[in-house]
Amino acid sequence: MTPSDVELVGRYTDIFQIGARNCQNYQLLEEVGRSGKPVMLKRGMAVQYEEWLLLAEYILAQGNPDVMLCERGIRSFETYTRNVFDLTAVPVVKHLSHLPVIADPSHGTGHWHLIPAMSRAAVAAGADGLMIEVHHDPSHAMSDGAQSLKPERFRALLPELQVIAGAIGRTLAPVREPIAAD
Amino acid sequence: MTPSDVELVGRYTDIFQIGARNCQNYQLLEEVGRSGKPVMLKRGMAVQYEEWLLLAEYILAQGNPDVMLCERGIRSFETYTRNVFDLTAVPVVKHLSHLPVIADPSHGTGHWHLIPAMSRAAVAAGADGLMIEVHHDPSHAMSDGAQSLKPERFRALLPELQVIAGAIGRTLAPVREPIAAD
Amino acid sequence: MTPSDVELVGRYTDIFQIGARNCQNYQLLEEVGRSGKPVMLKRGMAVQYEEWLLLAEYILAQGNPDVMLCERGIRSFETYTRNVFDLTAVPVVKHLSHLPVIADPSHGTGHWHLIPAMSRAAVAAGADGLMIEVHHDPSHAMSDGAQSLKPERFRALLPELQVIAGAIGRTLAPVREPIAAD
Amino acid sequence: MTPSDVELVGRYTDIFQIGARNCQNYQLLEEVGRSGKPVMLKRGMAVQYEEWLLLAEYILAQGNPDVMLCERGIRSFETYTRNVFDLTAVPVVKHLSHLPVIADPSHGTGHWHLIPAMSRAAVAAGADGLMIEVHHDPSHAMSDGAQSLKPERFRALLPELQVIAGAIGRTLAPVREPIAAD
Repeated sequence: MTPSDVELVGRYTDIFQIGARNCQNYQLLEEVGRSGKPVMLKRGMAVQYEEWLLLAEYILAQGNPDVMLCERGIRSFETYTRNVFDLTAVPVVKHLSHLPVIADPSHGTGHWHLIPAMSRAAVAAGADGLMIEVHHDPSHAMSDGAQSLKPERFRALLPELQVIAGAIGRTLAPVREPIAAD
Repeated sequence: MTPSDVELVGRYTDIFQIGARNCQNYQLLEEVGRSGKPVMLKRGMAVQYEEWLLLAEYILAQGNPDVMLCERGIRSFETYTRNVFDLTAVPVVKHLSHLPVIADPSHGTGHWHLIPAMSRAAVAAGADGLMIEVHHDPSHAMSDGAQSLKPERFRALLPELQVIAGAIGRTLAPVREPIAAD
Repeated sequence: MTPSDVELVGRYTDIFQIGARNCQNYQLLEEVGRSGKPVMLKRGMAVQYEEWLLLAEYILAQGNPDVMLCERGIRSFETYTRNVFDLTAVPVVKHLSHLPVIADPSHGTGHWHLIPAMSRAAVAAGADGLMIEVHHDPSHAMSDGAQSLKPERFRALLPELQVIAGAIGRTLAPVREPIAAD
Repeated sequence: MTPSDVELVGRYTDIFQIGARNCQNYQLLEEVGRSGKPVMLKRGMAVQYEEWLLLAEYILAQGNPDVMLCERGIRSFETYTRNVFDLTAVPVVKHLSHLPVIADPSHGTGHWHLIPAMSRAAVAAGADGLMIEVHHDPSHAMSDGAQSLKPERFRALLPELQVIAGAIGRTLAPVREPIAAD
């Protein structure tokens, strides 16, 4: 992204998401650091925990304190799932830093039917947020349909997560409804 | 193990544990299959889910239905933890088979301070059991002290797990106290 | 393998091969160590170099000095090849030990058309031997046909390897012809 | 890199090198594609062969035919070496495409003493070029000293590589001497 791209996107977005494939694009990290907007930094497919925290420093060093890390799975030999969803990242990052950690079971597993169990696990591990793909018609989604929940399944998951969150002394913030396409 | 080893161990143990390094020792799998005792089969460090289930078949095919699978972490590039504790194994195995799944956060992470969070996550993901190393004096343990909880920390974890289990409609069986060394 | 299995196989074989899946079957390692026959120890799919050398010690410690190590590929995220054929194992093992190293490009790559290039590379890296699968009718082989050379391709490879060997001051021992099936 | 960065660097460099960490920076790939200069695209640490070739398409699609791929090692569980130097990439890329392949045993292994063997192996596997770090005083290098050859070792390697190249019907282009720092 050129500076003007970050500027352009920044006019419309609340949060910049840096994807796994660009998490070592140091120039982009510095630019979103200067944007003044919160940044969610996804973990690269072969990035170690300590390297990930050092990548966050490129953003923080620009004076932007609003950085979230997002575990979305790493690459390994297992082919059944899209990635290996490494939830140990949650307590490790909390042990090593003060930054909030988000978990993305959609990319982490690649299969909608694995999302409920792994969402519950992420909350139980202490994740500060979840990123779940939702689509009203996943089989016709332009991308990532296989890892998207239908809105009704997503709604059914929320009370389960609420109970898990309560079990570890936390609460679930109200969820904004998926945006309707019409 | 020779047949007489399995026979000898079988006189004293309630459950055979097949470790990660011997999970593809086909002859041993068949022998414990013939033992008539329950078997806990740990996942090898580079074994895919479907291969793991096929390894279980070596035991089941001997007429022994009492097989448990145990996720204990796989090998990857991350060096902060001893292994990558792949909790997605829990819902995947439950999706593909009827076998119970145990989670071992001690080997899975290698660090005692990560065990509570990952135990909670394992229960939330639907694990049917946990294997946690406990030692009254971990810094002098003959092995695996770094991944062992002290008895008091272990006891403090149980009510937390009880609440998580309840949140997904399950209960925690009473835990047998760690055996005292005296 | 029970002791009698090692004894039985030992009556007919010149060399014991311990496969990747049993390279951490410590009892088997000790038994072939006591057999008095040479042993080729394949590297496990997730075994580090130093662990591999320590596995060899189980054999050597029985008084059997005739141990060869065999690199046959490790597991990684690449799915185009059967394994990742890690030829750096050759100079590393030679740096750390006195044991001979064999390279197996058949298992290492899984594709017959990659065998010639990787055989040349293995010899150039200093491998002390090659293990190449050969079959007169690969498409009907009971196993591993896709990674088998036809006899004529194997024969054509030998002079190329001879030249590479010569280039690093070594020679190729005469090759025993593939055994005819009749 | 912003367009002006590519423009600025392009004034002084003969070849753009895209490092492993930016090989999925799609915007940068397109910009160097438009630069009219040759581009060497390093393989990312967790990039599969077919993904790598698709990354090259971002450059080629801009009308720039001068793309070289560079294998520099992938991430795995082995910690003795800096990376796992995957030389099978050489015949695979040649099988799947027409692009030249360079091998970088410095990054691939991380140890100067492994460079000679793996350079020979790379040439024998069919690599079209080598990228070897050379430093007159490696122990005081600002970076990568451990994986740098001294000039005299580098010079001693060249005739060995010449012979290997000859063994597979190729020749070694004359090497430009390392630039003196004075």
